[in-house]
Amino acid sequence: MRQSLGETRSSVGTRHALICPDSHERTTLPGWPGSQIIILASPQIGAKFVEYFVEMAPGTKAGAPAAGIERFFFVLEGEAALSLDGENHAMTVEGYAFLPAGKAHTISSAAGAKLAVIERHYVRLEGTAGPKPLVNNARNLPVARLKGDDRLPLQKLLPEDLAFDCEVNIMGFEPGASLHYVETHFMEHGLVMLDGGGVYRLDNSWYSVSAGDFIWMGPFCPQWFGAIGRTNARYLIYKNWNRTPFES
Amino acid sequence: MRQSLGETRSSVGTRHALICPDSHERTTLPGWPGSQIIILASPQIGAKFVEYFVEMAPGTKAGAPAAGIERFFFVLEGEAALSLDGENHAMTVEGYAFLPAGKAHTISSAAGAKLAVIERHYVRLEGTAGPKPLVNNARNLPVARLKGDDRLPLQKLLPEDLAFDCEVNIMGFEPGASLHYVETHFMEHGLVMLDGGGVYRLDNSWYSVSAGDFIWMGPFCPQWFGAIGRTNARYLIYKNWNRTPFES
Amino acid sequence: MRQSLGETRSSVGTRHALICPDSHERTTLPGWPGSQIIILASPQIGAKFVEYFVEMAPGTKAGAPAAGIERFFFVLEGEAALSLDGENHAMTVEGYAFLPAGKAHTISSAAGAKLAVIERHYVRLEGTAGPKPLVNNARNLPVARLKGDDRLPLQKLLPEDLAFDCEVNIMGFEPGASLHYVETHFMEHGLVMLDGGGVYRLDNSWYSVSAGDFIWMGPFCPQWFGAIGRTNARYLIYKNWNRTPFES
Amino acid sequence: MRQSLGETRSSVGTRHALICPDSHERTTLPGWPGSQIIILASPQIGAKFVEYFVEMAPGTKAGAPAAGIERFFFVLEGEAALSLDGENHAMTVEGYAFLPAGKAHTISSAAGAKLAVIERHYVRLEGTAGPKPLVNNARNLPVARLKGDDRLPLQKLLPEDLAFDCEVNIMGFEPGASLHYVETHFMEHGLVMLDGGGVYRLDNSWYSVSAGDFIWMGPFCPQWFGAIGRTNARYLIYKNWNRTPFES
Amino acid sequence: MRQSLGETRSSVGTRHALICPDSHERTTLPGWPGSQIIILASPQIGAKFVEYFVEMAPGTKAGAPAAGIERFFFVLEGEAALSLDGENHAMTVEGYAFLPAGKAHTISSAAGAKLAVIERHYVRLEGTAGPKPLVNNARNLPVARLKGDDRLPLQKLLPEDLAFDCEVNIMGFEPGASLHYVETHFMEHGLVMLDGGGVYRLDNSWYSVSAGDFIWMGPFCPQWFGAIGRTNARYLIYKNWNRTPFES
Amino acid sequence: MRQSLGETRSSVGTRHALICPDSHERTTLPGWPGSQIIILASPQIGAKFVEYFVEMAPGTKAGAPAAGIERFFFVLEGEAALSLDGENHAMTVEGYAFLPAGKAHTISSAAGAKLAVIERHYVRLEGTAGPKPLVNNARNLPVARLKGDDRLPLQKLLPEDLAFDCEVNIMGFEPGASLHYVETHFMEHGLVMLDGGGVYRLDNSWYSVSAGDFIWMGPFCPQWFGAIGRTNARYLIYKNWNRTPFES
Amino acid sequence: MRQSLGETRSSVGTRHALICPDSHERTTLPGWPGSQIIILASPQIGAKFVEYFVEMAPGTKAGAPAAGIERFFFVLEGEAALSLDGENHAMTVEGYAFLPAGKAHTISSAAGAKLAVIERHYVRLEGTAGPKPLVNNARNLPVARLKGDDRLPLQKLLPEDLAFDCEVNIMGFEPGASLHYVETHFMEHGLVMLDGGGVYRLDNSWYSVSAGDFIWMGPFCPQWFGAIGRTNARYLIYKNWNRTPFES
Amino acid sequence: MRQSLGETRSSVGTRHALICPDSHERTTLPGWPGSQIIILASPQIGAKFVEYFVEMAPGTKAGAPAAGIERFFFVLEGEAALSLDGENHAMTVEGYAFLPAGKAHTISSAAGAKLAVIERHYVRLEGTAGPKPLVNNARNLPVARLKGDDRLPLQKLLPEDLAFDCEVNIMGFEPGASLHYVETHFMEHGLVMLDGGGVYRLDNSWYSVSAGDFIWMGPFCPQWFGAIGRTNARYLIYKNWNRTPFES
Repeated sequence: MRQSLGETRSSVGTRHALICPDSHERTTLPGWPGSQIIILASPQIGAKFVEYFVEMAPGTKAGAPAAGIERFFFVLEGEAALSLDGENHAMTVEGYAFLPAGKAHTISSAAGAKLAVIERHYVRLEGTAGPKPLVNNARNLPVARLKGDDRLPLQKLLPEDLAFDCEVNIMGFEPGASLHYVETHFMEHGLVMLDGGGVYRLDNSWYSVSAGDFIWMGPFCPQWFGAIGRTNARYLIYKNWNRTPFES
Repeated sequence: MRQSLGETRSSVGTRHALICPDSHERTTLPGWPGSQIIILASPQIGAKFVEYFVEMAPGTKAGAPAAGIERFFFVLEGEAALSLDGENHAMTVEGYAFLPAGKAHTISSAAGAKLAVIERHYVRLEGTAGPKPLVNNARNLPVARLKGDDRLPLQKLLPEDLAFDCEVNIMGFEPGASLHYVETHFMEHGLVMLDGGGVYRLDNSWYSVSAGDFIWMGPFCPQWFGAIGRTNARYLIYKNWNRTPFES
Repeated sequence: MRQSLGETRSSVGTRHALICPDSHERTTLPGWPGSQIIILASPQIGAKFVEYFVEMAPGTKAGAPAAGIERFFFVLEGEAALSLDGENHAMTVEGYAFLPAGKAHTISSAAGAKLAVIERHYVRLEGTAGPKPLVNNARNLPVARLKGDDRLPLQKLLPEDLAFDCEVNIMGFEPGASLHYVETHFMEHGLVMLDGGGVYRLDNSWYSVSAGDFIWMGPFCPQWFGAIGRTNARYLIYKNWNRTPFES
Repeated sequence: MRQSLGETRSSVGTRHALICPDSHERTTLPGWPGSQIIILASPQIGAKFVEYFVEMAPGTKAGAPAAGIERFFFVLEGEAALSLDGENHAMTVEGYAFLPAGKAHTISSAAGAKLAVIERHYVRLEGTAGPKPLVNNARNLPVARLKGDDRLPLQKLLPEDLAFDCEVNIMGFEPGASLHYVETHFMEHGLVMLDGGGVYRLDNSWYSVSAGDFIWMGPFCPQWFGAIGRTNARYLIYKNWNRTPFES
Repeated sequence: MRQSLGETRSSVGTRHALICPDSHERTTLPGWPGSQIIILASPQIGAKFVEYFVEMAPGTKAGAPAAGIERFFFVLEGEAALSLDGENHAMTVEGYAFLPAGKAHTISSAAGAKLAVIERHYVRLEGTAGPKPLVNNARNLPVARLKGDDRLPLQKLLPEDLAFDCEVNIMGFEPGASLHYVETHFMEHGLVMLDGGGVYRLDNSWYSVSAGDFIWMGPFCPQWFGAIGRTNARYLIYKNWNRTPFES
Repeated sequence: MRQSLGETRSSVGTRHALICPDSHERTTLPGWPGSQIIILASPQIGAKFVEYFVEMAPGTKAGAPAAGIERFFFVLEGEAALSLDGENHAMTVEGYAFLPAGKAHTISSAAGAKLAVIERHYVRLEGTAGPKPLVNNARNLPVARLKGDDRLPLQKLLPEDLAFDCEVNIMGFEPGASLHYVETHFMEHGLVMLDGGGVYRLDNSWYSVSAGDFIWMGPFCPQWFGAIGRTNARYLIYKNWNRTPFES
Repeated sequence: MRQSLGETRSSVGTRHALICPDSHERTTLPGWPGSQIIILASPQIGAKFVEYFVEMAPGTKAGAPAAGIERFFFVLEGEAALSLDGENHAMTVEGYAFLPAGKAHTISSAAGAKLAVIERHYVRLEGTAGPKPLVNNARNLPVARLKGDDRLPLQKLLPEDLAFDCEVNIMGFEPGASLHYVETHFMEHGLVMLDGGGVYRLDNSWYSVSAGDFIWMGPFCPQWFGAIGRTNARYLIYKNWNRTPFES
Repeated sequence: MRQSLGETRSSVGTRHALICPDSHERTTLPGWPGSQIIILASPQIGAKFVEYFVEMAPGTKAGAPAAGIERFFFVLEGEAALSLDGENHAMTVEGYAFLPAGKAHTISSAAGAKLAVIERHYVRLEGTAGPKPLVNNARNLPVARLKGDDRLPLQKLLPEDLAFDCEVNIMGFEPGASLHYVETHFMEHGLVMLDGGGVYRLDNSWYSVSAGDFIWMGPFCPQWFGAIGRTNARYLIYKNWNRTPFES
């Protein structure tokens, strides 16, 4: 499909948004000197979290976010390094880290990298300590099956632990596989299509989506996905978790 | 009607939502260990209250909600027990309880139960004490008639007392009976269809509803119901009450 | 509901129309000297038939329609007389007659009457003779039950005979009764609400209807009715019948 | 236009609402014991003020609203009395009063009355004292002409004084007169049609309105009115005023 | 309102159209050599008639339309002459003529003129002769009152005679006057606003209209007009008439 | 998904329709005595052909359609027999026949059967003879691949021959396979889902479809399908063919 | 903009359509053996003409259309030859020909070509002979200016002669130039974008269009174009002409 | 385009608004005694800033806004003077000033002026001092090219310095030039068209805009502009900048 001026595949609604590469506007942010930032979701769209792509130029780095804000990041392209508690972690594609709120750290890239970053105000569960930092690579993770369906590989990137107020998963769909039903729930999502594509129903709209697309699903947005294509569809998905609606 | 993938009877709008069993997404909550929770309405949808179904597995229990939050619950299926002020109340279907904000209690189920739970931040009326806890069963309640219409049986589950900032009723409709007019008011509703069904007009949309469906009606949402079917339609309905719009 | 200038309950769509008394425009027609005519459906709205109300002033009369056009009429109010083959039939409320195309006749009213009239180009079935004229009163007809449902009284005003290219029925609904499913079919309908009311779904629109309303349902218009009110809803309904879609 | 079940002339949108008598739901409020209250606009609809009708039963009374809230009321029907600073003001139809926030008073009615009441959190202008109470009758007020148009009589019920953070006017239109253009502004309105009627454009919707209707116009809602009928249209209209958008 | 490129007040729908001067496209037609033609309605929009403006340049003329087509014309500006049966009729503003199908004639203009022309296939009523030609000026016609309303002056430009298959009227509205109800009927209209303006409801759309605008109202289009402004609104309106829906 | 009264999965639009089993209305037709007929598409919906299901009761039969009409039928369930040119063809599931216009034949079923039938006015190509009758079973047909895609099995049920004015194919999709692009063309389709299901985009609407559903795609309706599920989706599809748009 | 499955830039409406290359479905037609045909507009979409692209394979040819149909064609790519009245015309890019109805001819291409072809039933003007055939190349034509605007080059490909019932033009727009106003007229258009692009308003929809796109504009469709880009936008446009609406 | 009563070019949506001169409602504000104020955007429309036109009458003046609010103003017409830190700056057309929050100043006009004013709560970047005041004229500024496109002149009115939490630019477009793609970003805009015009796509709506129009673009509103006309289009545009979404 040839690009025509004034057209975009992106669509922004009340309870959901599809943000496609053809409408990415790069900005700068003080905390990421020298990098290009593409903000995908934020409180301005109705979300309780911020998700963005960072295109780190070779030789750039960044420190921790503001007080009270936890950060998850995932390497989409290139290589980055995470300096944390005096240790330096080399991070390749599908490498990821969780940094609790208030945890000092530095992310750098010698040769350039593209990251997906998720940040939110941490909500502590009464009577529990906060979560610990975590560095890993999704390629090392075991693969479960969503609701026992052999066509739906699932990787959980964060531990199942009440200390965490969110979860981040990689969800896969073999060609022709789909969610079992349209979901409506009070949790919201930030979703990055990693591979393949298919059809996403969001509220009463239907979209064809493919790798590189981002979706924000707000609370109670009816949602369903079916994979179309020769290869597996796969997405990285954030969800708030383990907290009541009063706290979320 | 055969289920087709990607379809749902649920519909989420700006001032109302219909949440049907075909789109229920079960989650867990720290306060209800071992139970499955289906959040039906919450501040995330635009409501000032939280309503949810709890599917208690045999042998599970739960304590009181967070400070400042009052709780009403109603037994839809199975049996539960309420431990309150050192007493243990066995609660069968249509049993219900009101627990004022800050009131310690434990809900447990030996054999499993399904509850509808309503929670909200209590708003005290200046110059009054708060409400007392209450345990009862709707089957013990007298039946009034809404606006004197013999086809509209009405049970009030909470006392008419300015200490309460809400009311919960069971409203019935004989076949062919309906609300007398389309209502618009600043109060909101959470409604669980208990029996039968009919046609609900919400804003400018019309829905066919039946037992198991949940409806959120936001403030000023134009609303009307007529009962279709061989048997009475009956629903459990929450409404904020006894407070000015500035306080609600 | 107080009338406001510029408002009407009528609604005209692509595959259906609701024509309510508040928008009736009376016209005259050469064939009905001295009477007031309210055209409800006609080829101009997309129908293959014409249906209208006639308000006969005392002492007026009318002859047969143009060549090739058959006529059915039904007395809604007052009294009329039908002169046919040299006989004079006194017709009271719910009296009706079927006049085959080309059949000379005169309809007169000494004291005034209101009729519902249906006319269409007759389509002969190859190999059959045309239908015979018929004069009767619906109050004399037996009552069947639609699909065996005791809440759905049904009277067939025309014989089941392939010579007829249409049928006209009176369909009743006890309070809370409804059609069993949403129907879609290639036949069209002209419907006059005689008594009571309820909710009509037509395509994706929902209407509250009551006695005096007229509905045109075009081919394939999804349609469903449920009766709301204290008394039975009852309507007079025309349908093309006994011919293939190529001939209809 | 005959009333049909499930129908209303009321319409509730994002930036405006039309609330008509056919959908009035009467409630009680602790501050108005024995009276019936019809809430017309409130923060729940998106307004920064509360407007309601009070149907005072004979012998009922009410005190001042909560701290920080100013009140305006206007007698629509019957007679009321205002007790203020030790004085008792008899108030007949079109009588009105302004009570500054924190000003003790009692409104009573011996024989019953219907009032329109407007309340809001008062916003003080830095460096000024608050407004003084005011009791008057619109029939005593001079009549100006809006923008010099002789067909547009205008009465200002509150003084032009920076101490006031709102204004309340009675605006009239001779038959065929209209606002000179579609207005868009950041101020909001509560409007009660007192006499006559016409066509109101609100955002992209057009409504036929008449006496007894209430309209909420939210900030920036495009708005225009033209009077249709034999007699003048007249409405009572509230507007926030004299404060910057940051303070409003 | 300043003109912006790409904007128009015109709107074309399924059952109605508003054609405003800002979108007039002038064409030529073989039958009107030297004149500019603005086609306003025609079978291509869904109408059974053709209506157009002719801007006759000085010294131009035109003959009769094709066989079977009757013609009505009305002088909007300038002066024209009608040559008919050997007589020459000078026609000034508001002069008009009716030319039966097949009637030879010539329309000419020495100094230029603007005409509104209506043409349709004539439908003869069985057993009657066709209509006679007619030349007159609306300023000579008596003024009746629509439905006895003193604010609604009405002039009938054609005789009430079954030979005519249409009527053409000039309808007036004093400021604030309106049609008494929303009309729905099987006849269609071509309407030229001559003076003043107001609000036209067509189907579910509302339009502000003023002198120079043209409206096509198709069969069964719900329609209503109210006059806004300092002076009377007045329009020239065509309607098919005196024929059954089967013949129209 | 539980069936609720007044709901249907069927949807009827301007250029397409989805007709689902939940809204099937059975009728009788003179040509099919004793059988139940479900008309799926016909000129009344905007199609140039008629397609219907026939539920043949045991022991029923039918003759040829009217003059000029060709017929294709396909056995969906049960067994039927075709008597043609003195021969009797036993037809089991997926058996089908093409009967040219004017070709005498009898279809009978001893034990009952369900057929899909397609009929249209045959259009002869100038200079060619008409097509010959054809009896076969799809299970005997070779399987090609649409556009060489190994996931898209295709069977052509009629010969590629200019004598035919239409084609009927069985199109298959492996899970996750889809049409390669959204098609827009002047030909129309009648489609019966035989197995599996997926997502159909029709114009700007998206539908989840599954076995038993029927789709009419009118001329130029943008259309696309992707298969979702564990097994192949498969549909029987009619298309007009081999004629110019002037003849179609 | 990356192509996603199930997406298209094409859009088909009631009075207009945009048909883009991404949804082209190639068919065969008996009259063009060996060529691929893309039907762009036809009576099936609501047009009174047929327009299509022909992709002629090397060595293919075609004869004249059916009786009564006139043909215009224009060479978009490659080379074709027209054999007419015993002469052979070599036709290169932007070469075009007009062939009156009934005029025998052969179009062939030795090396392959892409043509735009327009066909319609010719309508003779009473009293005139039909048009003569015409062969030319647009590059040889003079360039006028639309309404005298120096930014709007215009070439008329057919003579201004009442014998022709249509015109075909090439219209150009310098960057930033636009039509002077939104046009509404009873004539329809078929438009092929040859170069550049811009924004097309059609009815109330706005489209970004570029070279290769086709637009059908039905009668009375409001329409406007503005050119965006570095180079001139240029389109080939068909319009019916010189006939009254009764004949068109 | 002639103005019709009740019409406006303004349009107010959820994520954007177009405010045109035809709907300007002038108000007064305490801080601008004697001036007319037209509020264009404010928190009431969903913006995080306030933008307005001030029509200063000769001899009027104004002081600084409330604590914490920074101000930018730009002279559109006439002449003003800025008194700041004891200096008096004469400001002519396209003169502008930036006044940090808390900075005392006086704006006056001897002969009258029209200003565009932008105000917002200043957000300090942790670890930096606030910005300094600035007075300049856009006509003195250098011209860059947006993304190196020679058709897109760009002037930055504020320094690139992290102390600033916003930027204000003048963006130009030669005829036919446009933004390179549809942008979606979390920053919002206030835009005043200074010269020329074109087509603005905002969300899924398209508008023709010209000098004097104001546009609010909320966060994530898809946006694109192309210039139509003989001369350059030029607009003054505000954007929040240099702060994370959590702080904005």
